[in-house]
Amino acid sequence: MLSKSQISFIKSLHQKKYRKEHGLFLVEGIKSIKEFIQSSYEIHTIFYNSEQVNLLPKLSANINLFEVNNAELGKISTLQTPQGFLALVHIPKNKKLAPQELKNQFTLVLDGIQDPGNMGTIIRTADWFGFKQIICAEDTVEAYNPKTVQATMGSLARVDIYYQNLDLLLEETQIPVFGALLDGESIYKVNWGNEGLVILGNEGKGISEAIIKKINKPVTIPRVGEAESLNVAVSAAIFCAELVRVKNL
Amino acid sequence: MLSKSQISFIKSLHQKKYRKEHGLFLVEGIKSIKEFIQSSYEIHTIFYNSEQVNLLPKLSANINLFEVNNAELGKISTLQTPQGFLALVHIPKNKKLAPQELKNQFTLVLDGIQDPGNMGTIIRTADWFGFKQIICAEDTVEAYNPKTVQATMGSLARVDIYYQNLDLLLEETQIPVFGALLDGESIYKVNWGNEGLVILGNEGKGISEAIIKKINKPVTIPRVGEAESLNVAVSAAIFCAELVRVKNL
Repeated sequence: MLSKSQISFIKSLHQKKYRKEHGLFLVEGIKSIKEFIQSSYEIHTIFYNSEQVNLLPKLSANINLFEVNNAELGKISTLQTPQGFLALVHIPKNKKLAPQELKNQFTLVLDGIQDPGNMGTIIRTADWFGFKQIICAEDTVEAYNPKTVQATMGSLARVDIYYQNLDLLLEETQIPVFGALLDGESIYKVNWGNEGLVILGNEGKGISEAIIKKINKPVTIPRVGEAESLNVAVSAAIFCAELVRVKNL
Repeated sequence: MLSKSQISFIKSLHQKKYRKEHGLFLVEGIKSIKEFIQSSYEIHTIFYNSEQVNLLPKLSANINLFEVNNAELGKISTLQTPQGFLALVHIPKNKKLAPQELKNQFTLVLDGIQDPGNMGTIIRTADWFGFKQIICAEDTVEAYNPKTVQATMGSLARVDIYYQNLDLLLEETQIPVFGALLDGESIYKVNWGNEGLVILGNEGKGISEAIIKKINKPVTIPRVGEAESLNVAVSAAIFCAELVRVKNL
């Protein structure tokens, strides 16, 4: 049985402040938890519903296991319908990407995305299309937000997320800097070359002024109809899809 | 000042049951409301915050105007941060598309999408790419759900949504039926022709069995990485973008 202090500890991890303080985040659902077990992430504890214990894979000895009932799971879960399993996972140390680690590939760069669902969808889409790393401006929503983790559907375990000073990185890099802007070259006509950064901006404000100045290849998704803008996760997906199309055909 | 019964009437429209009963739905924010004013939708009432009355455009005499204060707006809004304006808009009669109205164009068909945010994002994306109509299976989430309306960012005013029996429609149509499936031809290699339906399925279950049988052109977005699936709004966007690319190049 979970003690009151255990419950309040786990519930504190619903909030960014305490995730940061304890270096732990939550992953729910056995499918997602399995992806993290197979990844380089370090699992701290798995809380499992006894009725579904048979779904647990073999685990290394350093992972704590804790049986809980449905009522307890309801208390610690961030979901309206808890999914039988909840894991505490260690937040990896925030490494930074150096300019030379950007070469010979395309990397998504998120400048201040705020919606956890958008962030999660972008990570999931990047994983589908084989993008292994995403760079985020420091004011971008936290990848370990429960809604983000949920929206990645396990893909967070496979895509590395780096939070770092974009100004500095763009200052130092020599590779092309593409940016999703409303007045650029058509995405279907761009000469992509074989490496680059692809910057996507905040939901309301777009890419910040300072960063726009560093873009040397503004790119636009052609508008045929009348909507004023596209959702940022949709834009990111169209960029990923187009890069895969161009590189594989 | 709003009476108690006015407040409870408007709040009832947060729920599908009462939207259906009264034939009204909510649009919030002056930007979106303006899109509906300029559309074929019929506005019933606009509630406005007196401090922002200057943002209101000229209105025809048959639209009721009602001044409210911030506290009242907070009570009737579906948003955590109300946006100064809330309109009641008439739900249009549910017309159905006949097979001959599908010719010489591509139409998105949604088979049981459940998430209001996904639905809204698909409508917004369709509007960006110039798709004028979307057909929905009858069990697809309601386009007049407040979260859907919000996510369309005004595009609902421009894209016609039809709820109808897909089985019947697919039985009668002669044009190609494309479907987003995991084991189809690469989306980048499909011969699209100049007309067709493009079916996208439910978030968890995909396209229903009965509908899959009617698909004569299964299409897949190639996976390079490891995610198990794509978000349905992301898939819809990649289909729209690819159709626009192919048709315009």
